[in-house]
Amino acid sequence: MLNTRRHQNRSLCWSQTAAPVACPGVADPVRAATRRADADRHPLTDSQENARLFDYEQRVKSAFDSIVPTLKRISALQHEADFESRAQAMAREQLGFELPEAILADAWVTQLDMRRLFSWCVFETYHRFCDEFFSSDPLSQPQTDFQRFLIECGFHTLDISPCADGRLAHVIRYVLRLPYRAVRRKSYAGALFDIEDSLSKWTETELQRFREGKPSTADAPTRYLKAVAYHFSSTDPDNEGCAAHASDVRRAAQAGLQRLQAFQQAVQNSFCCGASIDLLLIGLDTDSDAICVHLPDGDGNIDLDNRVDAGDIYDATRALSPQRAEQHIADQIRQRGIDLPEGMARLIARLLSNNLSQIDYVRHYHGARYQDIGHAERFIGAGIGFEEVQLRNLTYFAYLRTVEEAAADLDVGVKIFSRLNVAHGLPVPVVVRYDYHGQVPGARDRAIQHCRRVDSALRSRYADLAERGLLHTLLVVRDCSASHRIEMIGSSVNGPVTQERH
Amino acid sequence: MLNTRRHQNRSLCWSQTAAPVACPGVADPVRAATRRADADRHPLTDSQENARLFDYEQRVKSAFDSIVPTLKRISALQHEADFESRAQAMAREQLGFELPEAILADAWVTQLDMRRLFSWCVFETYHRFCDEFFSSDPLSQPQTDFQRFLIECGFHTLDISPCADGRLAHVIRYVLRLPYRAVRRKSYAGALFDIEDSLSKWTETELQRFREGKPSTADAPTRYLKAVAYHFSSTDPDNEGCAAHASDVRRAAQAGLQRLQAFQQAVQNSFCCGASIDLLLIGLDTDSDAICVHLPDGDGNIDLDNRVDAGDIYDATRALSPQRAEQHIADQIRQRGIDLPEGMARLIARLLSNNLSQIDYVRHYHGARYQDIGHAERFIGAGIGFEEVQLRNLTYFAYLRTVEEAAADLDVGVKIFSRLNVAHGLPVPVVVRYDYHGQVPGARDRAIQHCRRVDSALRSRYADLAERGLLHTLLVVRDCSASHRIEMIGSSVNGPVTQERH
Repeated sequence: MLNTRRHQNRSLCWSQTAAPVACPGVADPVRAATRRADADRHPLTDSQENARLFDYEQRVKSAFDSIVPTLKRISALQHEADFESRAQAMAREQLGFELPEAILADAWVTQLDMRRLFSWCVFETYHRFCDEFFSSDPLSQPQTDFQRFLIECGFHTLDISPCADGRLAHVIRYVLRLPYRAVRRKSYAGALFDIEDSLSKWTETELQRFREGKPSTADAPTRYLKAVAYHFSSTDPDNEGCAAHASDVRRAAQAGLQRLQAFQQAVQNSFCCGASIDLLLIGLDTDSDAICVHLPDGDGNIDLDNRVDAGDIYDATRALSPQRAEQHIADQIRQRGIDLPEGMARLIARLLSNNLSQIDYVRHYHGARYQDIGHAERFIGAGIGFEEVQLRNLTYFAYLRTVEEAAADLDVGVKIFSRLNVAHGLPVPVVVRYDYHGQVPGARDRAIQHCRRVDSALRSRYADLAERGLLHTLLVVRDCSASHRIEMIGSSVNGPVTQERH
Repeated sequence: MLNTRRHQNRSLCWSQTAAPVACPGVADPVRAATRRADADRHPLTDSQENARLFDYEQRVKSAFDSIVPTLKRISALQHEADFESRAQAMAREQLGFELPEAILADAWVTQLDMRRLFSWCVFETYHRFCDEFFSSDPLSQPQTDFQRFLIECGFHTLDISPCADGRLAHVIRYVLRLPYRAVRRKSYAGALFDIEDSLSKWTETELQRFREGKPSTADAPTRYLKAVAYHFSSTDPDNEGCAAHASDVRRAAQAGLQRLQAFQQAVQNSFCCGASIDLLLIGLDTDSDAICVHLPDGDGNIDLDNRVDAGDIYDATRALSPQRAEQHIADQIRQRGIDLPEGMARLIARLLSNNLSQIDYVRHYHGARYQDIGHAERFIGAGIGFEEVQLRNLTYFAYLRTVEEAAADLDVGVKIFSRLNVAHGLPVPVVVRYDYHGQVPGARDRAIQHCRRVDSALRSRYADLAERGLLHTLLVVRDCSASHRIEMIGSSVNGPVTQERH
């Protein structure tokens, strides 16, 4: 049986021009949910924003989730006389695009190559999703205000490393309600970010301050703020927490803190003249999207046991006016944060306050808790990039330079998809993606080579799946120095894209 | 037949305490060669330095080249009654160290595991060579003078990318006679250096100037100088040139220039406020060690056809006084370098003048040209580090982060050693090495993991060789932030060092 919760036919789809439309004859669930949300919302909730975010989430996920039911219906027709035209009509209506003729045309010989067709549809849907993202910016949010606020709080950069788990992919834009372009996000399994990579980013940031005075001049008393977002499951803590830390929440928090401290020490030891950074540790309940923030003291030291929970704040402030609710948050932080600098207190208050909207979002659009508290990703994203993925449980991230270094993370992803897809006869769809800086000569060619090399390494590591048509890849690059769309380099659904270098 | 030129028994060896001693009863070839050198040297040659450098080269290479003849003699004894004690006596005398008892003790069962024993000896010799290098600094040279000179010439950093070919491994300390610690060296196949890696180094260097005023303050009118050293063979140009450019010297020079220009453009495009770098293109005849320098014009543009050859200068100035020889070099550069900035002209003059000593070195210690104009490396060095390797044809370099990315370079190395060693039944010895910054928390552990991961990937890529005992690895890390010795993590000669992560 397919995971019907995930693969049920939804009522929204992309039209052929990639613009979202409600399919005719179906009641609009967005409007209905918005009405429910308005009735019982927290005083600090931004309902309009919630409705907009939900519309987007719903629309994107529906597009992916329409694939299986549509292909099921098409499969039933495959030996009929007017199969190709009926299949195309059905695809246009349900998915918003036509299917590749070559695959349909071969169906009469034996049967439809459903694994190829499924992957083709996932990749086409991903392509349309990206095109919409980079052309019409559906999650736009003013970032200048936030940058100014951040500098007022004493920080010139906010660099967050969440866990690579797909259930945290929406942490910036949804959970924390921050403008995703104003925050650096780099995900790692268990939130155990790469210290050498972070040091290099720190160096780049500081040089920009010295040379260009951006985002603040080098003499401004601001600092680089590095945050970790670990996670846990309040409903099923022993099974649905962070796999990298064996679902042990204490271990996840402790490991995140240690990595933060190690990075701080690395900056202090590698550079002289009082170089340092500030640290922030955030926990996320992936069932309800409520965060907790571990408070630093006046010296920046973080006490794992001294935390403020957004869930508690939500309950305590639900009946208050917006002003009194804000005051309650500030009071909570002041009472528990001994000698906490004013700027850090303001930033934490903003994060907690923002998170109340997301708690309401989950309550009203997804029930008290998400239905998919476990993994339900639609594809694996492997490589560097994926700025467009700001949605929960859409993508299993494997940020990687090489399969060799990221083998353990990839194995976890393939294991998840073995359960989600392979167990039902469907392939693992992997988007291999490298973003590059267009102003660096040769960078595009190197990104393309990078894609092909990683594709080849994937096929070699998962040769058994690949040979059985149970691993399909889409190769994509993007010039990230401009708001360019993605560029499709090749895909296994159209035949082999890479050759072994042996 | 083994390569007897390379494997002949030399007269010098390390004593058991790693201090070099002349073996008793053999005439001292260093002194004899020095006498020859003095008789017919170029007026600008530093004969004393040449003797010192030759002594070191001779000593290190002899230590490696004594292994095969010694093991041959030991092999002949293996079924005799007092085998172990006689073998140890012979090893102590010829190699300066004892052999591992475990390997000798098993000889009676079938026969000596000569592949393991050979690899063990190569690794032990490498270990002793490294220990000497990092404890007594045998190639020391005052670096402060050179740094000051470089800044006077208008450069705060000299970053040279030679080809990864073992015949260029001595380019800094021998060919150009520069203090190796004052020059950044990063070798790549075909000298095609990584632009993103160089950008990151540029960023780090500039930040240090801004924050610490080192090596010059940010407002000093100095620049980052990036140089490429490509190579060719004057004796056998079609076969012994750069393999990455199919022994086509024009193509090698052109490719080096294009990569330099791309890096310059990357700096200009990625950073504002007039950020740029200066470029230098150097060619090396690997038969004679004579360099040529392609002269930039006043705008820094390099004309491939406008070059000064150290070989020509050597011939033209051989009968002059030192002062007139120096004057001749300066004149040559001034005549051909249109609008060449004074600082760049001074630096090029220094490089050409220094190279005259090396031309004499090759003439007097190695005949007019090296005997080993082709590959004759003793081991493969794979990873990041190898500061101690400043000798020609000692190491085939494969600077790498992962086998996945460096597969093509490694394949070339393994092919070379298939001819040098495997064809004679001897294994390919690979030193897997990662240097780390000790002040960065966890860096040592990550370097060790890195070694093990690469070792495992090597065994997987060259499974056929590894299974037949024809690929042996030594795993090494080193804290490069201090003058520490190397640290041995494990070796395949003592049993498996890594486990597959599958």
